Amino acid sequence: MTSAGGGHQSLWYDTESDTVRIIDQTRLPHELAIASLNSLQDVCVAIESMQVRGAPLIGVTAAYGIYLALREDSSVLESAIQSLAATRPTAINLHWALQRCHNGLASVAPEELAGRALELAQILEKEDIAVCEAIGEQGAAVLQEIWQRKSATQSQLNILTHCNAGALATVDWGTALAVVYKAAAAGIPLHVWVDETRPRNQGASLTCWELGQRGIPHTLVVDNAGGHLMQQGKVDLCLVGSDRTTRRGDVCNKVGTYLKALAANDNGIPFYVALPISTIDFAIEDGHEEIPIEERDAEEVLTLMGKDESGVPQRVAIAPENTAVSNIGFDVTPARLVTALITERSVVPATAEAIAGLLD
Amino acid sequence: MTSAGGGHQSLWYDTESDTVRIIDQTRLPHELAIASLNSLQDVCVAIESMQVRGAPLIGVTAAYGIYLALREDSSVLESAIQSLAATRPTAINLHWALQRCHNGLASVAPEELAGRALELAQILEKEDIAVCEAIGEQGAAVLQEIWQRKSATQSQLNILTHCNAGALATVDWGTALAVVYKAAAAGIPLHVWVDETRPRNQGASLTCWELGQRGIPHTLVVDNAGGHLMQQGKVDLCLVGSDRTTRRGDVCNKVGTYLKALAANDNGIPFYVALPISTIDFAIEDGHEEIPIEERDAEEVLTLMGKDESGVPQRVAIAPENTAVSNIGFDVTPARLVTALITERSVVPATAEAIAGLLD
Repeated sequence: MTSAGGGHQSLWYDTESDTVRIIDQTRLPHELAIASLNSLQDVCVAIESMQVRGAPLIGVTAAYGIYLALREDSSVLESAIQSLAATRPTAINLHWALQRCHNGLASVAPEELAGRALELAQILEKEDIAVCEAIGEQGAAVLQEIWQRKSATQSQLNILTHCNAGALATVDWGTALAVVYKAAAAGIPLHVWVDETRPRNQGASLTCWELGQRGIPHTLVVDNAGGHLMQQGKVDLCLVGSDRTTRRGDVCNKVGTYLKALAANDNGIPFYVALPISTIDFAIEDGHEEIPIEERDAEEVLTLMGKDESGVPQRVAIAPENTAVSNIGFDVTPARLVTALITERSVVPATAEAIAGLLD
Repeated sequence: MTSAGGGHQSLWYDTESDTVRIIDQTRLPHELAIASLNSLQDVCVAIESMQVRGAPLIGVTAAYGIYLALREDSSVLESAIQSLAATRPTAINLHWALQRCHNGLASVAPEELAGRALELAQILEKEDIAVCEAIGEQGAAVLQEIWQRKSATQSQLNILTHCNAGALATVDWGTALAVVYKAAAAGIPLHVWVDETRPRNQGASLTCWELGQRGIPHTLVVDNAGGHLMQQGKVDLCLVGSDRTTRRGDVCNKVGTYLKALAANDNGIPFYVALPISTIDFAIEDGHEEIPIEERDAEEVLTLMGKDESGVPQRVAIAPENTAVSNIGFDVTPARLVTALITERSVVPATAEAIAGLLD
């Protein structure tokens, strides 16, 4: 088993102190800080402020939030579900996890509720790890096939990824990066192009850190560069995650994903999306019309956090004061631009029929 | 006449002190600093460090560099041309301006050389202003036509631009933004989506500043956002500049331009490129094969300059230390994705035939 970094999962439950621990992802890459979540409020803040992020990880964190809420007051199941559901709008796993909590807890006696909620959160945590590892294995087989064709003429397989769909976006392993870890472990010589992923730079700060921890060769590029790299034949495949996938295969992922999918399509490069089946929203078909796209604070665009020359974290302004900003978090890549979905059960084309088959 | 900001052109010659003055663009948007160039060396450093940037402005600055070199030593014409030509590889205007200097000065007597070089630089400066104003007028007519169709159903015309092809990229007016200024002056209610343009953020720091100075409504977005905006019908046209254009209409511009052209094409949105004819390299056809693409320092990606909370400029690191970086400055948008080229003479399709006609 891999682990999210520094020997830790992204999230774990500490039995002794009865506390939920997380890697505080807002402090990376400059500091590996562990934060403790002890209340529903802590969990909501951690999700909203993106101390934890990534669709699968948000889901598991929310399940622990239900436990922490019920530990205080066994009457708050539905209101806790509502508070957690309101933290972030786009990723479907949050709603999927909360639905699991509702289904599993609605008829439990008050005195048993907290205990059952903890068990359920621990089940979701373990499932997430197993599912991500299975995604990695499914995807590694795809990469093996591509590498067999390419290895005669090149010394490494070049993968472009956007944002962080890694161990840090899940409890462990990751989705897109689980594929990378499994393929590397299988001996494929990999190199990853890492989009920095403005505005929050999850590529530069999280994916580079995660790949560096595991010794996977990688090169950081600005989000603008991927098209040129593809035109120049320097990318063999794109591999990203998904925050919500529709039943016909439209993929909603970190803003900018659609641009990379267009460039892959224009250059005949396969574009893979790795995702747990829990990320598929079977209730919707059209990603453009039906997925709520989160708008976040203008400060994320106007200012940027980094480490100054003396090693101190500083927030610096990069645009004129009072500049108007639009800060949308996600975009939708239509199914026609997706080569295949890599799930824990199988690798399927992004079509309604194939996706429906995942439930069989 | 507009001026690049704060009442100044981007570059001007101060007769009294016999000095070339520039707006130091590395200090914007937080400070309007004027720098003086007094030697060939000053000019080379200003171009390399991007105190001046933008294909047309680099060309005029280089012509003044020839003057400053010859003022010291009338024997250095050819070596000065070589030094200046080596500063930046991609923009063709630099070579075009240096060719003009060579042609105009090669047979001039030594004692007259400096004086003639100054006259020539002043001619190039005035030409650049006139050419950019003419580009603005040609393009404003295009926008007027689009606006006539759109005005029945919307209250403003939404333009997406990438990098800075504004007054700051030329002596005055700009190329893409000259079109914006002329269209705004003609009464078209405009709104500009400004890509921040990583890694050097010329959109956030220069285009926002320039548009703000002139009261043109604008909204800053990260480079990743443009595809989503186009999918949502929030962009009526894209309008960018060019650092070099091939004789068949491939456009080499700031990295990331190609991604926006793909998105425009995918969403049926016109994609215009505004450029002086001096930006066309009639010697080459295939932008991918024949244009040298500048690679710049990794620090531009790994660190970022901004103003901290006390108003002090700070460089902050945004990725793990020692991360490998690729920092390419430009990409090539193939002619098939370009709706039309807006030049000072006319608006033409991006085809070899139409481009050849610009020389008639």
